[in-house]
Amino acid sequence: MFAAKLSKAIKEKNNPCVVGLDPTMEMMPEFLQKKYNVSVQKENIPQMFLEFNKNIIDSVADLTPAIKVQVAFYERYGLAGIEAFYETLKYCKEKDVLTIADVKRGDIGSTALAYAEGLLQEPSIDSITVNPLFGTDGLTPFVDVAKKEGKGLFILLKTSNPSSAELQDLEVEGGQKVYHKISDIIATLDEDCKGEYSDMGVVVGATHPAQLAELRKKQKGFMLVPGYGAQGGSGKDIVDAFDDGGLGAVVNSSRGITSYYKKVKADEKDYAKFAKKSLENMIKDINSALAQKRGK
Amino acid sequence: MFAAKLSKAIKEKNNPCVVGLDPTMEMMPEFLQKKYNVSVQKENIPQMFLEFNKNIIDSVADLTPAIKVQVAFYERYGLAGIEAFYETLKYCKEKDVLTIADVKRGDIGSTALAYAEGLLQEPSIDSITVNPLFGTDGLTPFVDVAKKEGKGLFILLKTSNPSSAELQDLEVEGGQKVYHKISDIIATLDEDCKGEYSDMGVVVGATHPAQLAELRKKQKGFMLVPGYGAQGGSGKDIVDAFDDGGLGAVVNSSRGITSYYKKVKADEKDYAKFAKKSLENMIKDINSALAQKRGK
Repeated sequence: MFAAKLSKAIKEKNNPCVVGLDPTMEMMPEFLQKKYNVSVQKENIPQMFLEFNKNIIDSVADLTPAIKVQVAFYERYGLAGIEAFYETLKYCKEKDVLTIADVKRGDIGSTALAYAEGLLQEPSIDSITVNPLFGTDGLTPFVDVAKKEGKGLFILLKTSNPSSAELQDLEVEGGQKVYHKISDIIATLDEDCKGEYSDMGVVVGATHPAQLAELRKKQKGFMLVPGYGAQGGSGKDIVDAFDDGGLGAVVNSSRGITSYYKKVKADEKDYAKFAKKSLENMIKDINSALAQKRGK
Repeated sequence: MFAAKLSKAIKEKNNPCVVGLDPTMEMMPEFLQKKYNVSVQKENIPQMFLEFNKNIIDSVADLTPAIKVQVAFYERYGLAGIEAFYETLKYCKEKDVLTIADVKRGDIGSTALAYAEGLLQEPSIDSITVNPLFGTDGLTPFVDVAKKEGKGLFILLKTSNPSSAELQDLEVEGGQKVYHKISDIIATLDEDCKGEYSDMGVVVGATHPAQLAELRKKQKGFMLVPGYGAQGGSGKDIVDAFDDGGLGAVVNSSRGITSYYKKVKADEKDYAKFAKKSLENMIKDINSALAQKRGK
């Protein structure tokens, strides 16, 4: 169900780009910092983040099929921060935008079930990211709850960071690499899925164009592609994450969108307007790369 | 600093066993369920968990060097659940017991830094568990913040679950396995550590006796050993996680301790007393296995 909803939103908005809300102090306009008096009252930081996020959401909701919220940037400020995380997700749903809770949970079966229930039964969460290090029995509780709730998973397959090669690219039998084995495990999780995209998606970094092409062929779920923009990936790098119809992938940008007003030295009061501008640029870049690929 | 504190507590209490607080509805005595009216008011579950935990902590604080709190069992109940997680950790510190926040976080560098700051700068958290899938650049922010704060890490090295072999035991070059490569990476994280135990510890399941012996020789940090009791490991299985002086490892039991009153069909009002009894049995089992090993 999640993948079907995501496909529908991408088609309606003609956009496979998703916005990441990963607020930091450096990202905040000075006028907001003053309004919340955060240099003295640090406890106000989560409320400031929430106002920042809501304005961005208002500005991009018509354009973006989904918003990714990275919990670490909220957990950094303790319980009040985590409250802002849930409030941000809730506001996305109020604006009819799908949510990706980027939590990268992973554990043994009974613990994985607790995570899965806590997150995937939450109405404001449509999908979560999951870490596969524990193998099949750590993944199946997430899969079972996701199927029951019609929610989605994005399981880490090949991460965008430079050190991702250290473990994920280790060579195992038959010239295969560790990430191939992760791919094989994920492919077994939703064997009754035919035709449509599976709700059991994967994460593959924009920094690995060759792997995007290879893994698109092997995986039945959507690909969540982080690492566009700030981490170095561009439109032409990620076209092979998509199928010929322009579906099957969503590309995330976080700082590249929410800090764009700083990059172009715009009036800080216009931060949400410039977030939208940056998203429009990204959509243009990716949609024209996709058009060019189709034209070939 | 964390490892030194842990060593001191283990010596003073003559006990390397730690108690895991992973509350579930099934674990709760009926009188507590009635007191909090949780069949009607589900929102009271976290407060019930907190009372349950506090009584266990009161009962075992004199015996246990550390308490491990698995966040998934709190996150399952949303924000109020996470509040009970932080309150549980705070109560452990009030009773002068070291804490292990079992959160298994792992992400790319900037996100890992946010996690590390949020968790390791929290006064009631002495150490956390970390997932190494991202490789070195995902681990170093945790290491840097841990060193600055005098806190500890336990990095997943070989997990206790049956499927752990799927990825962690894959053979790579030279007859080595993936977990050996994880071990090599972890060994580079604290190269200036000499003599004393490093604050950069590891997690190796009680279900892998041979690996405990092998990895004890390679790792400079403490080993956190889950999987005792409920998951099948026994005292003699885990003796090789320890050095000859009986230090270098802590063994966790969660359900085995907190649900012991159910197993022995005791009066449910005595759940905390029986948790202590179960811990005493575990200490006896492990300390006598250690004495036997020394006697050989």
